[in-house]
Amino acid sequence: MSTKEEITEFLSKEFPQSTVSVVEVGNQGSTVRQEIGSAHLRPGGTVSGPVLMAVADSALYVAILGEIGLVPLAVTTNLNINFLRKPSADSAILGACILLKVGKGLVVGEVFLYSEGHEEPVAHAVGTYSIPPRKTVK
Amino acid sequence: MSTKEEITEFLSKEFPQSTVSVVEVGNQGSTVRQEIGSAHLRPGGTVSGPVLMAVADSALYVAILGEIGLVPLAVTTNLNINFLRKPSADSAILGACILLKVGKGLVVGEVFLYSEGHEEPVAHAVGTYSIPPRKTVK
Amino acid sequence: MSTKEEITEFLSKEFPQSTVSVVEVGNQGSTVRQEIGSAHLRPGGTVSGPVLMAVADSALYVAILGEIGLVPLAVTTNLNINFLRKPSADSAILGACILLKVGKGLVVGEVFLYSEGHEEPVAHAVGTYSIPPRKTVK
Amino acid sequence: MSTKEEITEFLSKEFPQSTVSVVEVGNQGSTVRQEIGSAHLRPGGTVSGPVLMAVADSALYVAILGEIGLVPLAVTTNLNINFLRKPSADSAILGACILLKVGKGLVVGEVFLYSEGHEEPVAHAVGTYSIPPRKTVK
Repeated sequence: MSTKEEITEFLSKEFPQSTVSVVEVGNQGSTVRQEIGSAHLRPGGTVSGPVLMAVADSALYVAILGEIGLVPLAVTTNLNINFLRKPSADSAILGACILLKVGKGLVVGEVFLYSEGHEEPVAHAVGTYSIPPRKTVK
Repeated sequence: MSTKEEITEFLSKEFPQSTVSVVEVGNQGSTVRQEIGSAHLRPGGTVSGPVLMAVADSALYVAILGEIGLVPLAVTTNLNINFLRKPSADSAILGACILLKVGKGLVVGEVFLYSEGHEEPVAHAVGTYSIPPRKTVK
Repeated sequence: MSTKEEITEFLSKEFPQSTVSVVEVGNQGSTVRQEIGSAHLRPGGTVSGPVLMAVADSALYVAILGEIGLVPLAVTTNLNINFLRKPSADSAILGACILLKVGKGLVVGEVFLYSEGHEEPVAHAVGTYSIPPRKTVK
Repeated sequence: MSTKEEITEFLSKEFPQSTVSVVEVGNQGSTVRQEIGSAHLRPGGTVSGPVLMAVADSALYVAILGEIGLVPLAVTTNLNINFLRKPSADSAILGACILLKVGKGLVVGEVFLYSEGHEEPVAHAVGTYSIPPRKTVK
């Protein structure tokens, strides 16, 4: 298992282009946060779908890192996302992940996405990661 | 129905941050292309999942614009993506969309994603867009 | 909104071939139960996938009936299911649904599927129903 | 690889409750057929969603058996289905599967579902099977 600090350092080294920050990790879950700026918006003044997908994917990955250690080569095999409500153009996006199954080869989790400060989710995703035979980097 | 030129102009005006180009559109389908640079890569020298999701979403949107006209407020309601093979780090990503259903309120399509110059798809997505009551912008 | 008794009566009249029973309904959710017999099993002594999908679909439908009234013509537009663990061959299957969005035209919900008496879910589904303009039957 | 006859015999022995027949198998694909009777219908005079899901799952399984041999313990890990058009109440359902990836551990395929004699698909599914280490039964 990895701590929030270890994961933050790992992400900044291995995924320097990532812009999400780790709010919380542990207990087979995570919360991540993405600041929203004009580059993330689309017509209608709302956050674009791919931004939400990226946050969902990151939340899942962070929860996995927290659970099984720092595996750079874990890869998403499937992601399914439902867009539920129009996100606020003025709020960060939070992704809250809960792992549903931690298997040897596959990990499945769900992610609720929120506009920060709002109660109802803007989207919901379920994703699967394939985990390579464990050689954790540390 | 809109032409490739009309859609390209529409995207550059309405989605200035979009980086995909329209290769082909028509016959309830589309092909779009995303140049790949270091910002799109992840550990293992492969294109990151969110980049592929964004290309899938764009291919679907372009096919819809080609079919029903320039609707800025069409929104994705569901996207499901399966990652099939490791994309090449050195090739552009192509997204080839075929619409499966063009309903009054919902449009469903599938997208095959390729590393340019390679025959086998790197990912496959199916997505649904919700179409607002038609007020096409032109 | 409809009660458990109204929904049970409605299902037995409109869906006479359905074999799930309504355990609980309300608060934008439901629990349904499917007895498991040899017809539901497959090699390896486990409940077949389509049985789990049918329970997920029913749980979603019951939650919708509980929320918006007895709409016979509501139809599933999308269902995504992840199979997480091998269900017990000797236990009923329970489906516990929570609605994530109740829109005018679309309702989205998630369903956790369990082997009765076991704590960890055997599958997890997310589905969307399209709701016709409201003419509730009563 | 297995022939249509071998697969038909295998299914009738291992899945005696299955009611689909194998129309065609080979070239990383399959077509299966399900007769429709009153037990498969729902209000509105249309084939119920779970019947379509079961046909999709079977088409995928048959295509896999045709490609990698008779593996009784292959299991679905994910299935995503979009319902596109109202199926005819009077026609059999055909499921036409194409495998998108045949990996060592995971196989992904898509299935188009049709009302026999109609051109446009009534549903489209994408599914993943997990394949156990190969010990084919023959």
